[in-house]
Amino acid sequence: MFVDQLERAQRETGGRLCVGLDPHPEIVPGGGKAAHAVGRFLDAVISQTKDDACVYKPNSAFFEALGSEGVAVLRQTVDRIHDAGRLVILDAKRGDIASTAAAYARAARGVLATDAITVIPYMGEDAILPFLDSGLAVFVVALPSNPAAAAIVDHGSPPLYVRVAELATRLAERFPGQVGLVVGATHPAKARLLRDVGPRLPWLVPGIGAQGGELVAFLGAAGGDRTLVFNVSRGILAAEHPGDAARTFKEAMGRPHDR
Amino acid sequence: MFVDQLERAQRETGGRLCVGLDPHPEIVPGGGKAAHAVGRFLDAVISQTKDDACVYKPNSAFFEALGSEGVAVLRQTVDRIHDAGRLVILDAKRGDIASTAAAYARAARGVLATDAITVIPYMGEDAILPFLDSGLAVFVVALPSNPAAAAIVDHGSPPLYVRVAELATRLAERFPGQVGLVVGATHPAKARLLRDVGPRLPWLVPGIGAQGGELVAFLGAAGGDRTLVFNVSRGILAAEHPGDAARTFKEAMGRPHDR
Repeated sequence: MFVDQLERAQRETGGRLCVGLDPHPEIVPGGGKAAHAVGRFLDAVISQTKDDACVYKPNSAFFEALGSEGVAVLRQTVDRIHDAGRLVILDAKRGDIASTAAAYARAARGVLATDAITVIPYMGEDAILPFLDSGLAVFVVALPSNPAAAAIVDHGSPPLYVRVAELATRLAERFPGQVGLVVGATHPAKARLLRDVGPRLPWLVPGIGAQGGELVAFLGAAGGDRTLVFNVSRGILAAEHPGDAARTFKEAMGRPHDR
Repeated sequence: MFVDQLERAQRETGGRLCVGLDPHPEIVPGGGKAAHAVGRFLDAVISQTKDDACVYKPNSAFFEALGSEGVAVLRQTVDRIHDAGRLVILDAKRGDIASTAAAYARAARGVLATDAITVIPYMGEDAILPFLDSGLAVFVVALPSNPAAAAIVDHGSPPLYVRVAELATRLAERFPGQVGLVVGATHPAKARLLRDVGPRLPWLVPGIGAQGGELVAFLGAAGGDRTLVFNVSRGILAAEHPGDAARTFKEAMGRPHDR
């Protein structure tokens, strides 16, 4: 099960840091317009951070923006992460009807060889099940980190993000250890509403600021016995020394709970 | 403006047929595992249907499932459609925060040279604006065609899909002629609720059955003075004679309103 592998990696690294691989052109040496330069840059980041990152999250958009060569580099990057003994969550935010989701699952699992994927639940469980059926773990986006999402995810009573967490919980009963949620660090009060929905799904948490300021409030909201993974992208990729930055972030996030 | 180009193409073809290019492996001659075979198959479909299709909608998932070569074939397919004098809506259902959406816009506009893209609104207007800023037209998914989406899009009062249409309408004020909605043909009663939200945004309508049975009910729900585009994928791609099938579908859908 994915969650077991994740927890093992957390014990090995003594932390819960996810390094987000979002190669913005402005942070890749040489401008990041050439796919091979992006690949070399990410290889260096992975080798410098692998002792502190329990998982990596490449963001598909930045590879797609480099064309077909970017997709080839994404596949190579997944291989490098696996060579380093770490797991890969493909940040792709796919969300489509079942037959299309099955094709996206072939792309993520068959072509890219990733372990997990982020999914948008707008089309309901049809959008999620084909990934689980393919053997991928899924992180369902419940509570995005960006403020503008409130216009959608706060809608209704209970708010939509609670309904999404309930949907994910039902799926987790059928695919234990294979379903998690994406819960933005920027909304600890809302995250608290998710705390008691169903069993303790793992949370992938984006939106930790460079200072980690929201972390204490967020940890209180999440509850103590949940597998948490905190993503940091730019704060590590744009650092002069990514390895040092990763270690600092990991330590600021506290140690995972041994199980 | 995209909507003007679309309406011109509707007058030229005398119809409102969108051909969905979803190259499922089982409908591509030879099994569809080889990207070049998929490319040849789609070239033939395009040349046989271009007099009847006002627009094409390649589904990114089926190209991504073929790896980096599939992405190259997708780009070539877009070029073939443009060579045929037709517009391209990339069916990619992207939906992420602004900086990531901007990278997806570079992929869709810069790499693939598409004219429009489908977008999932779960993260609010942040997920949509970067595509509009890049010059792409956007079809915002309001009411998906699959029944399981009801668990999400019916949530709240008014239901979420109405809120999404309102959000799209506000964006259309800033980007006139560049914003439309995706409204599934399978829910005429729900579509009717969208009829009077704001100005008459164009609708891209998936879910027309092989028999076109729901069409009359749907046309009543949509109202008479809206630009409608009806998508058919498998009914044309899997037909023995795609050109004949396209003509039959086009005629069943009725003529667009001249403006």
